[in-house]
Amino acid sequence: MGLMVHKYGGTSVGSIERIKEVAKKIAEARDEGNDVVAVVSAMAGETDKLISLASEITDLPDEREMDLLMSSGERVTAALAAIALQTMGYPARSFTGRQVGIQTDDAHTRARITHIDAEPIRKTLEEGKVVVVAGFQGISSNQNVTTFGRGGSDTTAVALAAALKADLCIIYTDVEGVFSADPNTVSNARKLDKVSYDEMLEMASLGAKVLHNRAVEFAKKYDVPLLVKSTFKEGSGTLVTNEDESMEKVVVSGVTCDKKQAKLTIALVPDKPGIAGKIFGQIANAGVVVDMIIQNVSTAGITDISFTVPGGDVSKVEGEVKKIAEEIGAGGVTINESIAKVSIVGVGMQSHSGVAAQMFQTLAEENINIQMISTSEIKVSCVIDSKYSELAVRALHESFKIGEDD
Amino acid sequence: MGLMVHKYGGTSVGSIERIKEVAKKIAEARDEGNDVVAVVSAMAGETDKLISLASEITDLPDEREMDLLMSSGERVTAALAAIALQTMGYPARSFTGRQVGIQTDDAHTRARITHIDAEPIRKTLEEGKVVVVAGFQGISSNQNVTTFGRGGSDTTAVALAAALKADLCIIYTDVEGVFSADPNTVSNARKLDKVSYDEMLEMASLGAKVLHNRAVEFAKKYDVPLLVKSTFKEGSGTLVTNEDESMEKVVVSGVTCDKKQAKLTIALVPDKPGIAGKIFGQIANAGVVVDMIIQNVSTAGITDISFTVPGGDVSKVEGEVKKIAEEIGAGGVTINESIAKVSIVGVGMQSHSGVAAQMFQTLAEENINIQMISTSEIKVSCVIDSKYSELAVRALHESFKIGEDD
Repeated sequence: MGLMVHKYGGTSVGSIERIKEVAKKIAEARDEGNDVVAVVSAMAGETDKLISLASEITDLPDEREMDLLMSSGERVTAALAAIALQTMGYPARSFTGRQVGIQTDDAHTRARITHIDAEPIRKTLEEGKVVVVAGFQGISSNQNVTTFGRGGSDTTAVALAAALKADLCIIYTDVEGVFSADPNTVSNARKLDKVSYDEMLEMASLGAKVLHNRAVEFAKKYDVPLLVKSTFKEGSGTLVTNEDESMEKVVVSGVTCDKKQAKLTIALVPDKPGIAGKIFGQIANAGVVVDMIIQNVSTAGITDISFTVPGGDVSKVEGEVKKIAEEIGAGGVTINESIAKVSIVGVGMQSHSGVAAQMFQTLAEENINIQMISTSEIKVSCVIDSKYSELAVRALHESFKIGEDD
Repeated sequence: MGLMVHKYGGTSVGSIERIKEVAKKIAEARDEGNDVVAVVSAMAGETDKLISLASEITDLPDEREMDLLMSSGERVTAALAAIALQTMGYPARSFTGRQVGIQTDDAHTRARITHIDAEPIRKTLEEGKVVVVAGFQGISSNQNVTTFGRGGSDTTAVALAAALKADLCIIYTDVEGVFSADPNTVSNARKLDKVSYDEMLEMASLGAKVLHNRAVEFAKKYDVPLLVKSTFKEGSGTLVTNEDESMEKVVVSGVTCDKKQAKLTIALVPDKPGIAGKIFGQIANAGVVVDMIIQNVSTAGITDISFTVPGGDVSKVEGEVKKIAEEIGAGGVTINESIAKVSIVGVGMQSHSGVAAQMFQTLAEENINIQMISTSEIKVSCVIDSKYSELAVRALHESFKIGEDD
């Protein structure tokens, strides 16, 4: 008994039948004596459909307009879910991002939450109603609709859980939890019962599609216990929470793979102070997040700079990067979109040496060339040719012995 | 040169290609030196799709939730139209009902506008931008999204034209103007160059689908010149404006037909004071608008009461009416959904006698039985069996000689 935030993704609300199932799940939680705030995504495919309408007009639509466009899908689901609950006899009330008091900054299509006024929700819960919230959206200080980027409904759920000091935030999705690797690639991938926020954060940002990484950041910052479980199958799911001792026994918790990055290389860059600042300053101005950056050791005052950006952002930066390359007298820009970033993640790495070496060796044994490397305290990532990605994931999963016993 | 409000209906914005055409029309008006506020409907079929989703859950969805649901279609079109204009190099900005400052009462699904704050639009026009407004919606004093009922985008357009004191409000639609009868029924129906607000009002409320009647009321009240014309074909359209002398020459301007009404009859009602008040009070509480009411002369303290309501509202009132009939000891309730209301409209009627008689005689000559009659200063309506509706319209159109010369 307590206050729960549920979040239902696009597949979970993909049809009226499924919305009715979701209403039943919420009703069960109510029957058990819980207050429920349910955050819903757009029905599966709806957001893509809206984006494709805009792309029939232009490749670079205005982002303020895109936010108004894209925010409509979640509103539809919220209204339908509230109607489904009411029809079952459970008082419910839908809220848009604005009505629920989610204030954001002005960064359209990737807005960040600046403040949540929890009062409207609290008041509605006190009236004995289920609160159904349109995910993925908020409102800026100048009253424009903003959205949080793909997967933003996770962020809505966790942010509301934090603001309401909810006892639990359940992310209902189409998988049974967080796995040690993609079960489609690795047959003996293991469902993890528990992962730390930090591990989840690395996994999310490295391509595990279960949770949006900003949501995990939020959960970590405000200590919101997150439970990831399936909407469709019974099961205990995966609890994402603070690190505890039992976690340290495992060195590597999971292997992830992200094929949605592209690598840009600027060749023959004069190695002068300020050049990198210029390049990445311009890219930041275009609102594109650069992931890995590598600058080779300079030879005779000339170097190469490689970096990765989300594949979908290549068109936003390509022209700018080529212009800069010309301005600074560099040799040219090459773009490689067929790369994959394969990573191993685990809090146990902090107290174990040789983990990175074992990863490099495992890839070498499979004759997979490593193009870029990046490390943090709890992960090691390698950029490789995307055609080897499944092979690499399977080899690493085997090498670090994180699968279930066959 | 001046300030124009354009309104584009669902068919006019039914695809991306058509939205681009609409953007071209707006751009032309800009090029001619006009400031333009464009009100857009949902893409054809979208609102029906949303309503049908809700109807898969329940027949009687909550109206607050329906408003959130239904308001999303217009938002999508507004964003897309703004993007189309921007892509053509015309600065534009979308506004939702809330952002445009359209305040309404709390009557969900049929809200009335209480106040418009024209400042956000004025400011945006002064910046040289086209203002694109999501039609059909506003916001109530307690911050809920409200909608204006079917055809409500017309109301948005006229209300904005009034608030902005626009020089002209053009309703772009899929027909070339207002006709003396439905051209699908009457082959020599004439396009009217000019009609008065009052005639248009009667025609709109009597089933002519060109303009939403609340929009015409608004236009009349605030003296907004309305031009109805085709989005797809060139042509002068129909100007809806104040009565002028040239109009009086014609006795009957048009014949209309409304098949979307249903007739309810309560038989053997005890003829006591307060009974009618009780019946229609309850129906009003259900938010249903009663059109015609007829009470027969009482025989031995017993009478019949017949009335018409919109066909789609029968399910809302049926149970209530049957309950009342039982309570007051009436004989039973019969419902007839296959009726049609055929009407003749014209300002000239005010100074001509015998118009109603000619109508009844014309119908009698075709052996069409008249079930109910209602009259106003500028129209006569008869409820008949719906199977005779086309025949009746053609006969009346011929009888009053309002067609084009063959």
